[in-house]
Amino acid sequence: MSKPIRFNAFEMNCVAHQSPGLWRHPRDRSRDYKRLDYWIDLSRTLERGLFDGLFLADVLGVYDVFGGGPEAALRHGTQIPVNDPLLLVPAMAAATRHLGFGVTVNLSFEPPYGFARRMSTLDHLTEGRIGWNIVTGYLDSAAKAAGRARQTAHDDRYAVAEDYMAAVYKLWEGSWADDAVLADAAAGVFADPAGVRRIEHRGPHFQIDALHLSEPSPQRTPVLYQAGTSPAGRDFAARHAECIFMSGPSRKVIAPRVAAIRAAAARLGRPPDAILMFSLLTVIVAATDEEAQARHDEYRAYADHEGALTLMSGWTGIDFSKLDPDAVVQHVENDAGRSALENITRADPDRVWTVRQVAEHVSIGGIGPVVVGSPGTVADELERWVDETGIDGFNLAFAVRPETFRDVADHLVPELQRRGRYRTSYAEGTLREKLFGRSARLPGEHAGAAYRWARPAL
Amino acid sequence: MSKPIRFNAFEMNCVAHQSPGLWRHPRDRSRDYKRLDYWIDLSRTLERGLFDGLFLADVLGVYDVFGGGPEAALRHGTQIPVNDPLLLVPAMAAATRHLGFGVTVNLSFEPPYGFARRMSTLDHLTEGRIGWNIVTGYLDSAAKAAGRARQTAHDDRYAVAEDYMAAVYKLWEGSWADDAVLADAAAGVFADPAGVRRIEHRGPHFQIDALHLSEPSPQRTPVLYQAGTSPAGRDFAARHAECIFMSGPSRKVIAPRVAAIRAAAARLGRPPDAILMFSLLTVIVAATDEEAQARHDEYRAYADHEGALTLMSGWTGIDFSKLDPDAVVQHVENDAGRSALENITRADPDRVWTVRQVAEHVSIGGIGPVVVGSPGTVADELERWVDETGIDGFNLAFAVRPETFRDVADHLVPELQRRGRYRTSYAEGTLREKLFGRSARLPGEHAGAAYRWARPAL
Repeated sequence: MSKPIRFNAFEMNCVAHQSPGLWRHPRDRSRDYKRLDYWIDLSRTLERGLFDGLFLADVLGVYDVFGGGPEAALRHGTQIPVNDPLLLVPAMAAATRHLGFGVTVNLSFEPPYGFARRMSTLDHLTEGRIGWNIVTGYLDSAAKAAGRARQTAHDDRYAVAEDYMAAVYKLWEGSWADDAVLADAAAGVFADPAGVRRIEHRGPHFQIDALHLSEPSPQRTPVLYQAGTSPAGRDFAARHAECIFMSGPSRKVIAPRVAAIRAAAARLGRPPDAILMFSLLTVIVAATDEEAQARHDEYRAYADHEGALTLMSGWTGIDFSKLDPDAVVQHVENDAGRSALENITRADPDRVWTVRQVAEHVSIGGIGPVVVGSPGTVADELERWVDETGIDGFNLAFAVRPETFRDVADHLVPELQRRGRYRTSYAEGTLREKLFGRSARLPGEHAGAAYRWARPAL
Repeated sequence: MSKPIRFNAFEMNCVAHQSPGLWRHPRDRSRDYKRLDYWIDLSRTLERGLFDGLFLADVLGVYDVFGGGPEAALRHGTQIPVNDPLLLVPAMAAATRHLGFGVTVNLSFEPPYGFARRMSTLDHLTEGRIGWNIVTGYLDSAAKAAGRARQTAHDDRYAVAEDYMAAVYKLWEGSWADDAVLADAAAGVFADPAGVRRIEHRGPHFQIDALHLSEPSPQRTPVLYQAGTSPAGRDFAARHAECIFMSGPSRKVIAPRVAAIRAAAARLGRPPDAILMFSLLTVIVAATDEEAQARHDEYRAYADHEGALTLMSGWTGIDFSKLDPDAVVQHVENDAGRSALENITRADPDRVWTVRQVAEHVSIGGIGPVVVGSPGTVADELERWVDETGIDGFNLAFAVRPETFRDVADHLVPELQRRGRYRTSYAEGTLREKLFGRSARLPGEHAGAAYRWARPAL
C-alpha cells in the first residue's frame, strides 16, 4: 500500500503572501484578511478537505532590500501590512473540530515565559490542535524594530534558539506533573502543590525562575514545525522538528534534502518516521486540463513580477532592482548560505535563469512549483513527488484565496481518495496523535522529553 | 434625566478569580475556563444583557506571599493556573456584534513592537471593540519569571510605562496615514509608500526603528483602561485612561477618588466626561429579597477564606498566614502605599476589622461590596452608588460563573431599564464610539492624539 499524501494550507495574516498581485483578482478575498469570517470560512473549507492543518507564516519586519527601502513592499502589499497570526486561531478552532494550526512565532522577539503560556493557552482552547513553527528571523528590519542594529548572525541564532527551547521545554514538560490538578471539590483542593515545580533556568541567553502558569494541556509541547535548510538550521530541525517544511521548484532539489534530514535525525536516535516533511507546492486544478490551464493563464494576468522580486530580495539579501531583467542569476553569490535563490537555480544545474524568469516563477506560490491540470493530472504529479522524494505531503500555497483551497478540497481530494492516497476521515485525538498515530505527548526519544518530570511518590 | 448605569463583567482566564472556593459550587463552570464554549456562551449572555464589555484581568506571576510560597495559591487555585487572556477575544468576537473587550496586558513583559501589532490585530478582528487595561505589575514572582530579581520600584514603573506609551502611540497613531491604503487594483498599488512613516523612538527604556506592521485599525489606539489608585498611578490614569476601574467596599471610599481623578484629568485639560469610572461590585439578584438572600447563604457555604487571604497577601504584600484570625488589621502598615487592605479598612474609619472579617469580605467578589436582593432592592442600591459617588457604572464580579452574569442580565437589567437607568439597545460603531458617543479615534485633547500624523500633501 502506497504512502498516503498529506496537505497543509499555507497562509499568512496579510494581503500578499506568496502570490503578489493576485489580491487584484476579482474573485480573490485577500483584502478580507482582517475579517474573522474570512478565516472561519477558510478553516471550514480545509476541514471539509481533510487537511492536516493550516500553516500560518509570519514575519516581523519589512521586505526592504529591493530598492533599498520599504517602498516596493508597501506598494505591492508584499507581506506588509501583516497582522499577528496567533490571534486567528481561537475563532477558527471554535468553528472546527479536527483541523490543526501550525503557527509561526519568531522566538527572537517573544520572551519565553509569556510565549510558553500563550501556546499552552492555545493548546487548551484548541483541545490539542496547536503547532509552533519555530523561526529565528531573517530580516534586519525586524531587529531594528526591537532596538537592535541588525539580526544576530545566522549560526548564533541557533545557539540562542537552543537555549530558548530548553527554557520552554522546562515550562511545558517539567513544571506541572500530570496528576497535579486534583480539582477535588469535597476536599477543597484544586492543585496539589507537591505536583507543581518551580523552573529555574539559567541559560546563556534566558533566565527563568517561576512556575509555569498553565496547567498541563493536551499536548504540553505544541507540535514543532521547522523550515531550516541551512546546515545549522538542519541540525536544529533534526533535533527538534516533528514536521518540516521545505521549498524548491523540483523533485531533484527536494529528494536529497529529505534524505539528509532523515539521516541527521537518525544520528540523533530518532526513528525514520519521527519527522513528517511537507514540500511547498501550488495546485491549480479544475475539471479538465484545459479548464485548469485557462485558469492558470487568467491568474498569470494578475501576477506581479516586481512584487515577486521584492520577496526574493528579502529572502536572499540581493537587491534585484539593480539587476537587468535579462541578466542571468545563476552565479550571483549569496552570503546567507543556501538561499532561496539557490533553491531555484540549483533545480536543474544545466538550466540558465534570468531575473525575469525568476520573477515569473516566484510570482505564483513562491519558490515551489505550480502544478496545473485536471484532478487526474495533478494527482499523478503529486504521487510522483511523494514517491520519488520521500516527502509526506505538501504545504499548499494559494494563488487566489480561498478559491485555490476550495478547488483542492472539491476536485483533488476526491481523486486522491479514489486512488487510496488520501484519508477519508480524520483520526480522533490531538494534532500530534492525528499526525503520528501515537501519543498526544512528545515521543520519549525527542529532545524535549528529557525535561519531563513526575512528582516524587508520596 | 438621571445618568444611565453601565456594566462591565469582570472575569479572568483562570479557575478562582475573586471568589475563591466558588469553583466547588455544583452549578459553577469555572473548571471550563479552558474551553472556548464557556467564553462564547458568556459573551452571548453579556451581549444579551447589553453590557459595555467583558473586562479580563491577568497576572503574570503567583500569589506567593501568603505562607511565603505558592502552596496556598496552588491548593486554592487562586489565579493559578492562569491562561493568556488575549487569546479568548477572537472566538468571543466572532460570536457577538457589540460587546467590548477590555484586556489586561502587563507592559513590563511585552516588548512594545509586537504588542502594538497584537492590539491592532485585535482591533481589526473585533471591528473596533478592543480595549487595553494598562498594568505595570505588582508581583515579584512575575519579575523573577522574566529573569529579574524583583519588580521595578513602584514609581519607576510609571516612568517606564510613560516611555512605553509613547512608543505604542507612535506606532498606532503615527506610522500609517488614514489614506495610506489605496488598494487600487487597476493601478496595482496596495499602499502609498508616502503615507507610511518609519517610527524612530529613542526613549530611555524602549527603542524602535520600524514601520508599524498593521494598517490603521478602526480605533487605532485601543480604548485605554487603568486601575491605578496610588498617587503615581492616579497621575498616569488621569493622563492616559479613558475608563478607570476602582475597588472599595463603600461609597465613602469611592466618592473622593472619583473626584480626585476628575480633578487631575481637568488639570491636564481633559473634559469632565473624558473618563468613565467603574467600581467593583458583586450582584446577587433573584426574584425576591428572600430568594436572593438564600442564594447568598448558599454561595457563602462554598467561600474559601484562606483563598481570600492568599489574594489579599498578594495584593498587600502582607503575609496574612502569620496573623491571628481575630487580630485587628486596622493599623497594619503596607509599604506599597494605598493598598488593597486600606481600601477595606478606610471604608469606615470607625470600624475595626479583624483578619477573619477581611477574609469573609474578600471571599466573594474581592474587595468590592456584595449587593444582595430583588431587582428592586439591588437597583436602589446601584442608583445610590452612582448618584452619590459620580461613578458611571460597575465592574461586576461573579460569585458563580456564569450564573451571576445570567442573573444580572435576566433580573437586574430589565428593572434598571424600567427605571430609565440602563440602555435598551446598543449604539452602532466601535467600542470608543459606544462609550463616548464621539469619534472612533482618541479625542484631540488626549495625550495619545499628539502622536498623530497626516502625510504631507502632494
